[in-house]
Amino acid sequence: MDQWTIAGRTFTSRLMVGTGKYPSLTVMRDALAASGAEIVTVAVRRVNLDAREESLLAYIDLDKYFLLPNTAGCHTAEEAVRTARLARAAGLSNWVKLEVIPDDGTLLPDPVATVEAAEILVNEGFVVLPYTTDDHTVARRLLDVGCATIMPFGSAIGTGQGLPNPERLRRIIELVDGRVPVVIDAGIGAPSDASLAMELGADAVLVNTAIAKATDPVQMAQAMALGVQAGRFSYLSGRIPRTEVASPSSPEAGLIAKESAPTTARA
Amino acid sequence: MDQWTIAGRTFTSRLMVGTGKYPSLTVMRDALAASGAEIVTVAVRRVNLDAREESLLAYIDLDKYFLLPNTAGCHTAEEAVRTARLARAAGLSNWVKLEVIPDDGTLLPDPVATVEAAEILVNEGFVVLPYTTDDHTVARRLLDVGCATIMPFGSAIGTGQGLPNPERLRRIIELVDGRVPVVIDAGIGAPSDASLAMELGADAVLVNTAIAKATDPVQMAQAMALGVQAGRFSYLSGRIPRTEVASPSSPEAGLIAKESAPTTARA
Amino acid sequence: MDQWTIAGRTFTSRLMVGTGKYPSLTVMRDALAASGAEIVTVAVRRVNLDAREESLLAYIDLDKYFLLPNTAGCHTAEEAVRTARLARAAGLSNWVKLEVIPDDGTLLPDPVATVEAAEILVNEGFVVLPYTTDDHTVARRLLDVGCATIMPFGSAIGTGQGLPNPERLRRIIELVDGRVPVVIDAGIGAPSDASLAMELGADAVLVNTAIAKATDPVQMAQAMALGVQAGRFSYLSGRIPRTEVASPSSPEAGLIAKESAPTTARA
Amino acid sequence: MDQWTIAGRTFTSRLMVGTGKYPSLTVMRDALAASGAEIVTVAVRRVNLDAREESLLAYIDLDKYFLLPNTAGCHTAEEAVRTARLARAAGLSNWVKLEVIPDDGTLLPDPVATVEAAEILVNEGFVVLPYTTDDHTVARRLLDVGCATIMPFGSAIGTGQGLPNPERLRRIIELVDGRVPVVIDAGIGAPSDASLAMELGADAVLVNTAIAKATDPVQMAQAMALGVQAGRFSYLSGRIPRTEVASPSSPEAGLIAKESAPTTARA
Repeated sequence: MDQWTIAGRTFTSRLMVGTGKYPSLTVMRDALAASGAEIVTVAVRRVNLDAREESLLAYIDLDKYFLLPNTAGCHTAEEAVRTARLARAAGLSNWVKLEVIPDDGTLLPDPVATVEAAEILVNEGFVVLPYTTDDHTVARRLLDVGCATIMPFGSAIGTGQGLPNPERLRRIIELVDGRVPVVIDAGIGAPSDASLAMELGADAVLVNTAIAKATDPVQMAQAMALGVQAGRFSYLSGRIPRTEVASPSSPEAGLIAKESAPTTARA
Repeated sequence: MDQWTIAGRTFTSRLMVGTGKYPSLTVMRDALAASGAEIVTVAVRRVNLDAREESLLAYIDLDKYFLLPNTAGCHTAEEAVRTARLARAAGLSNWVKLEVIPDDGTLLPDPVATVEAAEILVNEGFVVLPYTTDDHTVARRLLDVGCATIMPFGSAIGTGQGLPNPERLRRIIELVDGRVPVVIDAGIGAPSDASLAMELGADAVLVNTAIAKATDPVQMAQAMALGVQAGRFSYLSGRIPRTEVASPSSPEAGLIAKESAPTTARA
Repeated sequence: MDQWTIAGRTFTSRLMVGTGKYPSLTVMRDALAASGAEIVTVAVRRVNLDAREESLLAYIDLDKYFLLPNTAGCHTAEEAVRTARLARAAGLSNWVKLEVIPDDGTLLPDPVATVEAAEILVNEGFVVLPYTTDDHTVARRLLDVGCATIMPFGSAIGTGQGLPNPERLRRIIELVDGRVPVVIDAGIGAPSDASLAMELGADAVLVNTAIAKATDPVQMAQAMALGVQAGRFSYLSGRIPRTEVASPSSPEAGLIAKESAPTTARA
Repeated sequence: MDQWTIAGRTFTSRLMVGTGKYPSLTVMRDALAASGAEIVTVAVRRVNLDAREESLLAYIDLDKYFLLPNTAGCHTAEEAVRTARLARAAGLSNWVKLEVIPDDGTLLPDPVATVEAAEILVNEGFVVLPYTTDDHTVARRLLDVGCATIMPFGSAIGTGQGLPNPERLRRIIELVDGRVPVVIDAGIGAPSDASLAMELGADAVLVNTAIAKATDPVQMAQAMALGVQAGRFSYLSGRIPRTEVASPSSPEAGLIAKESAPTTARA
């Protein structure tokens, strides 16, 4: 069976999903189900840590999903560290999807602060899954400080631009070389993007906006699940190389030839 | 049920497959099955019209698949027309996937000859499915002469370059506007390409080399089927727009807020 | 001296310019001068063939510029042929920049009609410079019927999209292989596009909208001239290859080394 | 006159050049002259600080060029800081092009270490010109610590890949908003890349490999100078927008019309 592992915990689905931006919590619940996801991320600041029953968490079956708290909304390393600690203290999790995003306009992560916060949290025993850009050297630093995954973006959050720089992602995947999972997070707009991420050799993808803000979030969740599986199968199947010119043909003399072996350039 | 129709004939699968370049005919047979395809294209010149039992056709269950003869290997309009007539005369089909490819090096179609041959064949009562480039004006001409589909390439045959010009394809789909199906044919290298084609609004895709020459053709056939379905679901689900900047965020004052509605920029 | 030749006529400037869309005829005249162009194209239908003194032609110094009539506005092969004949009959020229553009919305050329009209005009003794798409097989047909240049577009007229498919252009240049000049026509939006066209090995470029509709057409004309020259020099100078990875470095032991030969990866 | 200023020092040429990888020092000297550059960067570790007469510096006319020492070859912030101090102590300069490149294989800069070293050096009174990736948040940090320029890459050093992500660069230029110059450094392979960088609004570009390793470095230096000037002029001239569809045409009734104003879609 084709499984993958983060920090000793094994998963089958390679599609992680978020919980923001849905038109309603019931739609969110149905989309989560349609996605087949096992890991669901939720902003710590959206969780009512004192009284969960009336909150977002009431719509997420914790027997079914593995809850991954994230530090969305944190502008600095300090805020992110404090938020992770709060979540753990409240019994939520010692796992954290680390996001340090200084600017609400661009929603781009701060590599310097992310590395800094990651190091602190790893040293405090957290399982840290950092969201980052596609910067190669930053990915290496995050790996070096002991992060449990590397989560580079495809493009900026919510833009739906997909993976305009697949080469940068491919090289991060090469760099990490299986030591931890690489999860492509942010920018995915359609299943073709999710499939491409998996074709490059990513271990998983995380999708939020593209599902939540689709006209039909539930069907789009299913589309993303299919796209991820398609890409994973493709990766395992050994795709053909990209070539500049057409594949060499084997022209034949006769128009209607008697033959049984497939030797033509195309049939 | 989500179906589509060519010349009055209805199909459910949106993945058409070819029969060339497989490592063996048994692998081909298994890959056809894994693809879920209903339409299978085969070069007329590879069919032994006199004695089919020993040929390629012995490996294609004609009760299960709709056989679409193609004119692969024809360099001129005349050759293509003659080949289509031969296939019909031999009882193969009055449908023809029209290919006029003058140069075995590039395997690029000849738009002028394709329009010319299409017009002749349509007038002779053939159901003509022409393979063409992504040229907008040529697509209009093929539509005008009465072709049953338009089949623009993603990129050149066998290159696996995918769809480097999605905008050109999108505009052909707009031009055709549902009058006949648009099938993206050639260039698809991985399921992400197949999914993208469907996301653009194509009615179907045709894949040959990317399946036949994959390391594991059978699993890749399944991957392509999933990619096509993912892209179709995405098209029906209304994907998010691509934007240059991050989606507007809704920054909140409190770090750990009590709330139940998903209003954050990301969760 | 770096010159080029169309149908026996030799030119030094590799920037051809159009005469449409300028804010005024005096700005046009100044932009032509700033461009350094030797060949200026003008729509036959804009020329007052009977009484030139009050027309557009009054602003184009015919001692200085070689006038190239074009068939802009012609929707069919017939119209284009008739327009070329009228221009020659009126003594304008036996050269013609052939444009057959059926649709005023997309302004995309019709390859089939262009080949048809080109063949007729060549047979009547015209020097034919056809505007076409980047279709490889169409380029070959235009070459085969005896055109004096091949003029593929970078992208659609007036879009300023530049050269999104340099590879297609490069292969047309390879195909033509110096037998006639290749001129990239349409789509150029900025000097980087013009330079890229020349770097690919084109013999010249034709620019109209990007100059005429710039905020400062005269300075933009100069910018385009510089871009063309930059690209030409680059082509002659042998550019470095594009590589996926950084160039191999030669790391050295000492930080401050005594050396005179440049051996470091970068300095 | 169109000039620009770094830390109070004014320049006219917008092409900065390096001194590494040339086939010989005499070729380097001639290429520097052909480039028209005013700023020449040289690796501190290549300079023989004790006895300059036999070194690289003998080939650089210090009355003509402004020498910009760089920290090429430094893998950590500490090495870079130490190298900058050595160069200043030896009387070379208090300006430094800061490069911290941990990996000789990829030659990618380390954003975290670059920010760290930049802060130290600015505080010690250096004029710091940091080489960085196209990361938006890192650019902001470098600006915040008081760097004299921001020098994002087009692509990795020596790859000649050009500017595959112009949008990222454009947004850094917007972010910096004229407070300091933005210089595109690394990845430029041909004048079209240099022109594009300037068209985006960069203040200057730095080119080394693409000149030094061209077949004809001297002519390529001239090509780059033309490309930079073309791009600068274009930026000042207000280029036309990129549009998806062709510019609206103004079809006219008559084929040969009497008119003097340029109103056609194209001429």
